[in-house]
Amino acid sequence: MTERLAIIGGDAGGMSAAAQARRRRSPDELEIVAFERGVYTSYAACGLPYFVGDLIDEPRRLVARSPEKFREQGIDVRTRHEVLAVDLDRRVLTVRDLDAGADTTEPFDQLLVATGAVPLRPKLPGVDAPGVFGIQTITDGVGLREWLDEEAMRTAVIVGGGYIGLEMAEAMVLRGMDVTLIEMAEQPMATLDPDIGAHVAEVLRGVGVTVHLGTRAEGFLTDGARVCAVATSEGEIPADVVVLGLGVRPNAALAADAGLAIGPSGGVATDRRMATSAEGVFAAGDCVETFHRVSRRPVSIALGTHANKQGRVVGINATGGYATFPGVIGTAVTKVCEYEIARTGLTEREARAAAFDPVSATIEGSTRAHYYPGSASVTVKVVAERVSGRLLGAQIVGREGAAKRVDVMAAAIWNEMTADDFSQLDLGYAPPFSPVWDPVLIAARKAADAVAAAR
Amino acid sequence: MTERLAIIGGDAGGMSAAAQARRRRSPDELEIVAFERGVYTSYAACGLPYFVGDLIDEPRRLVARSPEKFREQGIDVRTRHEVLAVDLDRRVLTVRDLDAGADTTEPFDQLLVATGAVPLRPKLPGVDAPGVFGIQTITDGVGLREWLDEEAMRTAVIVGGGYIGLEMAEAMVLRGMDVTLIEMAEQPMATLDPDIGAHVAEVLRGVGVTVHLGTRAEGFLTDGARVCAVATSEGEIPADVVVLGLGVRPNAALAADAGLAIGPSGGVATDRRMATSAEGVFAAGDCVETFHRVSRRPVSIALGTHANKQGRVVGINATGGYATFPGVIGTAVTKVCEYEIARTGLTEREARAAAFDPVSATIEGSTRAHYYPGSASVTVKVVAERVSGRLLGAQIVGREGAAKRVDVMAAAIWNEMTADDFSQLDLGYAPPFSPVWDPVLIAARKAADAVAAAR
Repeated sequence: MTERLAIIGGDAGGMSAAAQARRRRSPDELEIVAFERGVYTSYAACGLPYFVGDLIDEPRRLVARSPEKFREQGIDVRTRHEVLAVDLDRRVLTVRDLDAGADTTEPFDQLLVATGAVPLRPKLPGVDAPGVFGIQTITDGVGLREWLDEEAMRTAVIVGGGYIGLEMAEAMVLRGMDVTLIEMAEQPMATLDPDIGAHVAEVLRGVGVTVHLGTRAEGFLTDGARVCAVATSEGEIPADVVVLGLGVRPNAALAADAGLAIGPSGGVATDRRMATSAEGVFAAGDCVETFHRVSRRPVSIALGTHANKQGRVVGINATGGYATFPGVIGTAVTKVCEYEIARTGLTEREARAAAFDPVSATIEGSTRAHYYPGSASVTVKVVAERVSGRLLGAQIVGREGAAKRVDVMAAAIWNEMTADDFSQLDLGYAPPFSPVWDPVLIAARKAADAVAAAR
Repeated sequence: MTERLAIIGGDAGGMSAAAQARRRRSPDELEIVAFERGVYTSYAACGLPYFVGDLIDEPRRLVARSPEKFREQGIDVRTRHEVLAVDLDRRVLTVRDLDAGADTTEPFDQLLVATGAVPLRPKLPGVDAPGVFGIQTITDGVGLREWLDEEAMRTAVIVGGGYIGLEMAEAMVLRGMDVTLIEMAEQPMATLDPDIGAHVAEVLRGVGVTVHLGTRAEGFLTDGARVCAVATSEGEIPADVVVLGLGVRPNAALAADAGLAIGPSGGVATDRRMATSAEGVFAAGDCVETFHRVSRRPVSIALGTHANKQGRVVGINATGGYATFPGVIGTAVTKVCEYEIARTGLTEREARAAAFDPVSATIEGSTRAHYYPGSASVTVKVVAERVSGRLLGAQIVGREGAAKRVDVMAAAIWNEMTADDFSQLDLGYAPPFSPVWDPVLIAARKAADAVAAAR
């Protein structure tokens, strides 16, 4: 008898699982049906800032694989279909066809919840005014770009100084707008350590963004028809367009309503095989809670790279195989114009919160040999455990060549290397690529010295 | 009583040791004297191709720290002084002042041999003709550049397709010359696997270099005054200039004459503290033999990054501290115009030679998200042990962003990760920096699949 795997959500987590399951089981063995509320599958939400910034001309370029392509593989993708409820006892979904307006009941043997994240949207006066944009779907991106393509769009206000906030600030700078970024905390990238956050604020100002820190948005003023300013704790800021970049939270409401366990971080709780608390029900992607290997705490981190890996794990486990998702260490990279910002593991603040006794070291290095053209300054902060010297985290800010250096630190933190051992690593050296001591090695060396001095 | 540390060789290994030792001991406690045959200290030989290629205008920019700077730190640097002999029993050096032509005897308590490498120079007819250049010292670079700045220099022949050969080929291309590279093996970069070597040959041809493989240089023809062609096993090739890039070997003759143990690879044998077979005598840099952590075999690898680390270790150990050099894994990177080439660990061929039973996987990936401007193709080959899945090596060829990806593989190989574990690593992802599956993850995934299939 043909089994049926139903998938709620047609983006990275859901469709990676579908593709992996299809590779392992033919349509005769396993029916795969995926319900997607929107019109796109497997689209790169993380690419939206570059579409808005006009680096990408066609929104369809953000789609990795279309519904048609999935259908050719024997995956029954139903776009514009929203799952309203999950009945775990009867093992059926209530699904609304958003175009027809009709609800149907869809059975499943196994289920994947891949409902993604919801952007935080403050309940402030005027938040629904024309010209105030959240940015999560391709449709949001198209809407924002159409708005920007109108005449007389000169001033942009970005609310929130996290990843999306920075990337949207870049997009607006690239479009030649006057850009103001407001952030409630005393630094942008509030999850980074304050010294690194201060460096990011400098970077933003350096590329022409007006940055207001410790500033709260209190409402959005309109000229009757559309937004014209943002009211903040520090006064009004004129705005032809406002972009909200306040972060996201796991979209776990449907799972919670169905009775699936939700973790303390607010994401769907899963085990290492991405199985939820209910038999035959998996979860993957931005809606789940995962394990942070350094803090050993549950975290929800919305990132396509995790969603893809988790989806693959579900595709294997849902078809009788065995695969595990090993957790994350909080690696993230972004850029603002020519500056790159990266982190992995724990910041010093996070290390303390996770009950580590950390030491840290910060250095200014250079991305290439000092004499090689294009060599640029890079700041590396390394956090290590005082008593053992074990690497706990790294934060990097600099120009071209800075961000991907975080990967080697991520591999080291993953393997619980000490700062001292790390400083001896045999990394690639040639003048166009690094100084003879790569900045990450120098930073680790200095952290190792701090560890030794603390003994 | 003041001890005396004598150092033979004023480049990376020697002067790193001097600087480290001086940080730990004042001039009252320790006298440090360094003898250098040339006129420069701590110069970046690896930067010479970029000086020749006119990317760097001033040869002094290649000097990390001048003799004067070292002297200000209380390090007695004597340039143009060649050490002729080491007497371990009497603990004295015979030193020739090359300018004065006078020999003196210099005592030492501790000694560091940091005599570097000697370029291989074939004993072929005409090898000493004007216009045939080796390239090791700044003086060589200046001579070559002066030669090239003459009129009517149009054709260059590079003998040898290793790192220096490729980098000098790039330099000549940048100068607008007609460049021919001849290589005895059937591929350039003969230490890489044949499939990757073939890719490098394509890259060279793609940037306009004429490549003759399986071709032996047999002599250098002159027009009476200067070189005019290279005689090869495949015929004559016209040449206004010839650059020899045949590799180097450890310069261990002085150490051998003194009675220090020489290892099977031809370098001075050292223990993990960089101590030689004689009490109180250390060695560091290109003249030593070191330990390859994957093959577990002794190797001599001439590279500034190892020399610096080894010098630091000697500086600590020679002053009563304890530090070890953990060995190498053969990481190396280079570039030819816009193409980058990198390796770490063992190639498939080397893995077999080291008695591993390897599997490998090669993939074509992309350096950025497919939709992001500037995304370029990159080839990644991963070698793993068949029975365990342990990563043994990686080779990467591609455009900007390709080479430094080898670092994360180096960290993984250093930690003996499996391909499967590696494929789950939490690496930095954002569209400007990588696809959602970084090419190194895809390659490791494919290698893990090959491992699983072989079980």
